[in-house]
Amino acid sequence: MAISKRTKIKELLGSKEYGSTILAKGWVRTKRENKNVAFIALNDGSIIHNLQVVADPNEIPTETLDKITTGACISVEGKLVESQGKGQRVEVLASSIEVLGLADPEKFPLQPKRHSLEFLREIAHLRPRTNTFGAIYRVRHAMIFAVHRFFTDRGFLNIHTPIITGSDAEGAGEMFRVTTLDIEDLPKTEEGKVDFQNDFFGKETNLTVSGQLEGELAAMALSEIYTFGPTFRAENSNTTRHLAEFWMIEPEMAFYNLNESMDLAEDFLKYLVNYALTNCKDDLEFLNKRALDEEKNKKQEERNELSLLERLQFVADNDFERVSYTEAIDILRNSKPNKKKKFQFLIDAWGADLQSEHERFLVEKHFKKPVILFDYPSEIKAFYMRQNDDEKTVAAMDVLFPGIGEIIGGSQREERYDKLVQRMKAFNIEPDDMKWYLDTRIYGTAPHSGFGLGFERLMQFITGMGNIRDVIPFPRTPGNAEF
Amino acid sequence: MAISKRTKIKELLGSKEYGSTILAKGWVRTKRENKNVAFIALNDGSIIHNLQVVADPNEIPTETLDKITTGACISVEGKLVESQGKGQRVEVLASSIEVLGLADPEKFPLQPKRHSLEFLREIAHLRPRTNTFGAIYRVRHAMIFAVHRFFTDRGFLNIHTPIITGSDAEGAGEMFRVTTLDIEDLPKTEEGKVDFQNDFFGKETNLTVSGQLEGELAAMALSEIYTFGPTFRAENSNTTRHLAEFWMIEPEMAFYNLNESMDLAEDFLKYLVNYALTNCKDDLEFLNKRALDEEKNKKQEERNELSLLERLQFVADNDFERVSYTEAIDILRNSKPNKKKKFQFLIDAWGADLQSEHERFLVEKHFKKPVILFDYPSEIKAFYMRQNDDEKTVAAMDVLFPGIGEIIGGSQREERYDKLVQRMKAFNIEPDDMKWYLDTRIYGTAPHSGFGLGFERLMQFITGMGNIRDVIPFPRTPGNAEF
Repeated sequence: MAISKRTKIKELLGSKEYGSTILAKGWVRTKRENKNVAFIALNDGSIIHNLQVVADPNEIPTETLDKITTGACISVEGKLVESQGKGQRVEVLASSIEVLGLADPEKFPLQPKRHSLEFLREIAHLRPRTNTFGAIYRVRHAMIFAVHRFFTDRGFLNIHTPIITGSDAEGAGEMFRVTTLDIEDLPKTEEGKVDFQNDFFGKETNLTVSGQLEGELAAMALSEIYTFGPTFRAENSNTTRHLAEFWMIEPEMAFYNLNESMDLAEDFLKYLVNYALTNCKDDLEFLNKRALDEEKNKKQEERNELSLLERLQFVADNDFERVSYTEAIDILRNSKPNKKKKFQFLIDAWGADLQSEHERFLVEKHFKKPVILFDYPSEIKAFYMRQNDDEKTVAAMDVLFPGIGEIIGGSQREERYDKLVQRMKAFNIEPDDMKWYLDTRIYGTAPHSGFGLGFERLMQFITGMGNIRDVIPFPRTPGNAEF
Repeated sequence: MAISKRTKIKELLGSKEYGSTILAKGWVRTKRENKNVAFIALNDGSIIHNLQVVADPNEIPTETLDKITTGACISVEGKLVESQGKGQRVEVLASSIEVLGLADPEKFPLQPKRHSLEFLREIAHLRPRTNTFGAIYRVRHAMIFAVHRFFTDRGFLNIHTPIITGSDAEGAGEMFRVTTLDIEDLPKTEEGKVDFQNDFFGKETNLTVSGQLEGELAAMALSEIYTFGPTFRAENSNTTRHLAEFWMIEPEMAFYNLNESMDLAEDFLKYLVNYALTNCKDDLEFLNKRALDEEKNKKQEERNELSLLERLQFVADNDFERVSYTEAIDILRNSKPNKKKKFQFLIDAWGADLQSEHERFLVEKHFKKPVILFDYPSEIKAFYMRQNDDEKTVAAMDVLFPGIGEIIGGSQREERYDKLVQRMKAFNIEPDDMKWYLDTRIYGTAPHSGFGLGFERLMQFITGMGNIRDVIPFPRTPGNAEF
């Protein structure tokens, strides 16, 4: 009796309905066979583990079995039984197998052996069929959902801020131009410049670098909002931490001071880590093992003191250390690597911008836990950050994580019109170009704060992946816009 | 005794802790006063209703009360009591009020009167402070969360497909170019063409028109996925139904045929509507009343037979009618408006593309319920849709909603390599340019299906708003990229 309803492998592996007839579909990971029996490891992406399909050559025609190679897609009907072998609790005794799609073993790039991450990046369209990327994308989904769950439970509203923006005032980085002008035949003004009046939006437009400013507009009416969308930096950075296109989460909260914003940031990160630990057990265990294997190739001093799972548990269990920038400078100035001139950038005076080496020292060596630095020199921070009474610092904060460095950056926003305009001028931003932003300071202004979390940085921390290109399905980097 | 923890107005309005001291913060909607008392309507965006603050001029200094005007932001400490007036169950007797931000009554654009939607679009940075847009953005959040909830509960993974794409093969519409070339001084090849080798990605890139093709790649490994991200059309359409930047939800499911995909689409839409009815009661009641008021200005024959709430309930309660394109053509050909030549485009032969007027006739007049049309002529549908055995039609489907027309479009995808290549060629798409896409048909192909839901079209249906620019916070349309 043919059955028509497919059951996901995740469900089958958790089932105790021994003896029941089931239908499973998925992609073949491996096949081992002798003349009496064939064992097929089947995966459908619902879980990291494979379903073992046992095929008896007396039941399944040889011509079918021959087509079942790594990468082929098959549909299996059979009986769910307790497994007699090691490594799985249940397996399926196949009564019939249909081959839905072949995979020529001479050509299919994903053979059952270890492939380098670099190679897999080149076939990003096929890499979700590997254990590692299956695990990463399942964890990524769990983190997306956890973000929405966290904010929804607290009454925050998700606001979709614009991707194409006519505002170029933020200065957070190099931008991508967006245009519909015929680039081979550009319209020109009388002065010989490109005439943007005929461009789609009647002016120059770019891809957003942050939804913060528009997020603030919404927070100044709806109190607590968050954005979760793609942002863009046209920086020619070929590093393991930079993407040209990445996803950001930016909450903005009316009536929050910097301290309350730090509380929220800490709660948020702990929530996400706990959510992963609770909901992604199997995948994290796999990634933990994977990271340990990778560590073996590293020199002793480059290895993590803690395993991936231990690092996650550590963040979940410990309060973050809150340290002012001024205190941090004192610690760094008196630190061994500074005195022994081991830092590439030596710290000698207040006002220095902290480099990754300093952040990592504070987090990994000095405090040995996540650190929130706050009250940075106003010179090195953005125009919209609130000036402190000392007139030297702004109410900014960065959350620093082990291995990652800055994972969250935020601030209390300058809500005082005069001071904001004064800062804009100091940054050569024309206040008239940002009338809409200033209006919120003219009409019912309020103290408010916010921060940004780079979603892929979070994903690197949660999965232990060293290269940011491996935690987003289709990475965009200089020279790279495939698929 | 000063208290420091703000309570949201939504919570206060639901509270029965009469006599307790509370702290509320928000924006003043109106103030009514006489010499004995002032009534302030306060809103913080957490709920459509205002908190009534009662201020006794003996307690609150006149100079404070004078600053409290529409649009001002205030912090109120006081006692929560049962209201003696009409219109609210509780109110707050103010013991102290702090004015956080003024709003000059001569200048603040949102005075307590009815403003046109056109005017509010020009001040999109302030419109979230109105009842209408507060309601819309709360409903929008609820719908975002419901989308993620629906798919997460069913084991689908959210996949972030790329926004910047080097693939221009889909042909779903005009695209926006993305570039970092110096547009005032473009590098040229020897032939005098623009040299894109020096562009950021080393080639021409555009903003995505759909995440479907990349979504398919993920589904062919993870079985069931969905995208939820911004998509772009550079079409010069100034209509109430088009945006240049809008959000799309695109599920892709391995092993689903067209029927199973229709089942999912129907379940999905009903889930979203039910979620709104259950979780957005107050906002929908307000929007329902708003729509009824607006209808009064319309001619009798243009009015909706059902109110907004009735339309939502109707979709939740009724099975969608499934009708083949061929049947639909028969119905239309024999319909009164066709015979009496009332249609702008008369239906005379099989193969005609259906216009909005035909879709509305089927949904609103003939079946009087949501309709799913399926099996369209292959000539009028995209290359990736699966060819039916009749060799005339493809396994495509559109879900049509009253008032909106097409809200979902989808298909079973062509999983057979040879037939897909043949269709690509018929559409002048070079198979070599889409090798990555074709690879999924070479290595373990499987029957699969998917569909796309335009999130703002959904929002129009749920909120009853006539213009799509009013259901997204910062609309992008030709000539319009403000904020």
